[in-house]
Amino acid sequence: MHRDPVNEKDPGRSLLFERSTMPLLKSWVESANTPDTDFPLNNLPYGAFKTEEDETHCGVAIGDMILDVTALEEAGILMPAAEEDEVFFFGDWTDFMAMGPDVWAAFRTALTALLSEENGDAPELVPFLVPQIGTQLVMPFAVSEYTDFYAGKHHAMNIGTILRGADNALPPNWLSIPTGYNGRASSVVVSGTDVRRPWGQLKGPNDELPRFAPCARLDLELEMGAIVGTCSEGMVNVQQADDMIFGYVLLNDWSARDIQGWEYQPLGPFQAKATATTLSPWIVTKAALEGFRTSTPERERELLPYLTEPGPMLYDIELEVTLAPEGKDATTIARTNYNEMYYSAAQQLCHHTTSGCPMNTGDLLGSGTISGPNKENRGSLMELSWGGKEPLTLDTGETRTFLEDGDTLTLKGAAQGDGFRIGFGYCEGKILPANEKPHA
Amino acid sequence: MHRDPVNEKDPGRSLLFERSTMPLLKSWVESANTPDTDFPLNNLPYGAFKTEEDETHCGVAIGDMILDVTALEEAGILMPAAEEDEVFFFGDWTDFMAMGPDVWAAFRTALTALLSEENGDAPELVPFLVPQIGTQLVMPFAVSEYTDFYAGKHHAMNIGTILRGADNALPPNWLSIPTGYNGRASSVVVSGTDVRRPWGQLKGPNDELPRFAPCARLDLELEMGAIVGTCSEGMVNVQQADDMIFGYVLLNDWSARDIQGWEYQPLGPFQAKATATTLSPWIVTKAALEGFRTSTPERERELLPYLTEPGPMLYDIELEVTLAPEGKDATTIARTNYNEMYYSAAQQLCHHTTSGCPMNTGDLLGSGTISGPNKENRGSLMELSWGGKEPLTLDTGETRTFLEDGDTLTLKGAAQGDGFRIGFGYCEGKILPANEKPHA
Repeated sequence: MHRDPVNEKDPGRSLLFERSTMPLLKSWVESANTPDTDFPLNNLPYGAFKTEEDETHCGVAIGDMILDVTALEEAGILMPAAEEDEVFFFGDWTDFMAMGPDVWAAFRTALTALLSEENGDAPELVPFLVPQIGTQLVMPFAVSEYTDFYAGKHHAMNIGTILRGADNALPPNWLSIPTGYNGRASSVVVSGTDVRRPWGQLKGPNDELPRFAPCARLDLELEMGAIVGTCSEGMVNVQQADDMIFGYVLLNDWSARDIQGWEYQPLGPFQAKATATTLSPWIVTKAALEGFRTSTPERERELLPYLTEPGPMLYDIELEVTLAPEGKDATTIARTNYNEMYYSAAQQLCHHTTSGCPMNTGDLLGSGTISGPNKENRGSLMELSWGGKEPLTLDTGETRTFLEDGDTLTLKGAAQGDGFRIGFGYCEGKILPANEKPHA
Repeated sequence: MHRDPVNEKDPGRSLLFERSTMPLLKSWVESANTPDTDFPLNNLPYGAFKTEEDETHCGVAIGDMILDVTALEEAGILMPAAEEDEVFFFGDWTDFMAMGPDVWAAFRTALTALLSEENGDAPELVPFLVPQIGTQLVMPFAVSEYTDFYAGKHHAMNIGTILRGADNALPPNWLSIPTGYNGRASSVVVSGTDVRRPWGQLKGPNDELPRFAPCARLDLELEMGAIVGTCSEGMVNVQQADDMIFGYVLLNDWSARDIQGWEYQPLGPFQAKATATTLSPWIVTKAALEGFRTSTPERERELLPYLTEPGPMLYDIELEVTLAPEGKDATTIARTNYNEMYYSAAQQLCHHTTSGCPMNTGDLLGSGTISGPNKENRGSLMELSWGGKEPLTLDTGETRTFLEDGDTLTLKGAAQGDGFRIGFGYCEGKILPANEKPHA
């Protein structure tokens, strides 16, 4: 094992003991007690949904239901702030996120008590439950700014080998810097939003000049997203960064590889990454994941002291990707784990503040593509098809190098506890054909 | 002349004739009629300021005064929207920007009439005037997202020659793509905000490993910023992009060259550009600049059709940079002109939407560093000192390769009319020493 879950400098921070002994917490919402639900009482992820009246409300997933916390706040039953503040009024968790760890903890405690089996049948709460099935989920927070990292070593090695050969695969700074670039917050969408194949400047290796055409090498990137809760002022250390993080989501950073190949030197990816980035709709809180913390792998080059983790800040979250061609069954094309990352979100967030860059409530950090050591662990088609040279065969018999119109991509993820799991739901998007003309 | 101010496809779009005949428009605010003011009635730029009661109000610069438009709206004298909407209530132009070109034009017409000499002495408006001197200006709009481009050819050639030699100076895609990268909106500040020298990972060419230390090669970048007024949905063409732009400001994209050198491969600049970007406080509207339009230079490589300008979309704006060491006089270190850009803001904004990337009210586009053909036209110290090898001598006798603590940098800019100028005021910032320790 290359991983050391017990941090030697501070063994008290390792939470694996707690993890192994934490049982399923039982709820009076029966569907939350089944072993196959993503949303037991141990989870309580935060989302937003459309009510029958077409209002947007904040909700918490419990089993196959949603607890309407906007309505609960209005009814005076569950209030994270003083009575006159309506934190959930607009159906968005951003204000709550800004309130900080003490409020987050108190609210979770109240929520857990409300939904616990020990609360009896709670008939007075039943009217606040909405079935998940048939309910439209929307973005649960306002993305302030979006940064995408490149912090998976297997991914960086694979991409580097494809582009530059095995000897120069890893950029010289990679083992020292959690490499990242600023993405485009306006392009972040919630699971279920269709993704239109983009146009862009394309230039093949043998073309003299670029042409403007629909992307022919559209890809997914399997990532986790960390959501910043509280703001920074000046540089923060890794522990402070971890304390600022509100929760995690699944993230698919759709990528136009042909646009990227022509545009990215010298200032990095731009339009190749600006069509869409899809998030899973439920924010799984740091509190729910506490028992699944794990350390980053051993360092191959000693980190500068500012990046040292005071305790385990990655998580053991199993991940998978499926691809379903239009009207056909899905094939699992990759399985990996968030614990494969070389840098944690806390390290990334700390590095993000080194320049004094202010980080704000609602900032979203993409982990970077999460691949593992083996072929079946690769989190992008660029890697799975080795730059388009080795087509992938789906269970339907079809092959893929990159995405085709009508393909539906689904990311799933869960931390596996003893008799329960902390699930993330789905992060899904379907590819629509490019517009016939680039603009109206 | 390499520039062709009359567009042959549509000569009606060239506005040079209008420019040469447009006179100074006279105001009853006497200081607006002097030839040395940045803010004649022809200009009317939009800003925000702190009132004596410490409220933030929207204001319009006129001569050496500010017209308080928040108070005018409240008094029912100048209302851009229906009576019940208080567009300027929060002292921010963002809502107004979102209202679109028809509202912008009607408001400017009303404002011009109000401040015109033909309006007599207008004693009823005098209470709405605040002297600029002693009044604190603040950010006039909320920066939604910030994109910085690399669209000045002299700058790209200079930087490329310093880094890669003259033969490989220009990246292969440069003549086809308005190259840009996403910057960090949270780091954008208004003129007058001090800039703290950042810490970062630094690695000299002969160092084996990086160290974490204060930046030693802090630089300025002389740029113009274009501010997006209305939103896009899907790709827009160059004309639509131009129509979306609300106005322009001066922009200094402070850059940590040593941090940048080590971090920027392969995903572009990140922390090197995240300490601060300073804007001049007055948004000069597109309407005020209309008479100063000029075309981009002749193409060295034919552009893909989507990037073709239907008319002149650059502006003839004279620019200069001064540097004042702590407590000493300023030296002008560069003079150039916005018309040196190879791509206009409209072309950049069009390209920004090719992927379908939604552009929003308050998005800020940095032009890229504006250098000219000669040494004295270079818009960064990286160029002026040729990568630090040729120190610059200031009028005080001191030399500079990069910025030193206590230096105050000031950008100025103006479009020169016949007997008046459309000025931008100042874009200024002072360098404070790095913190002794990187974080608390």
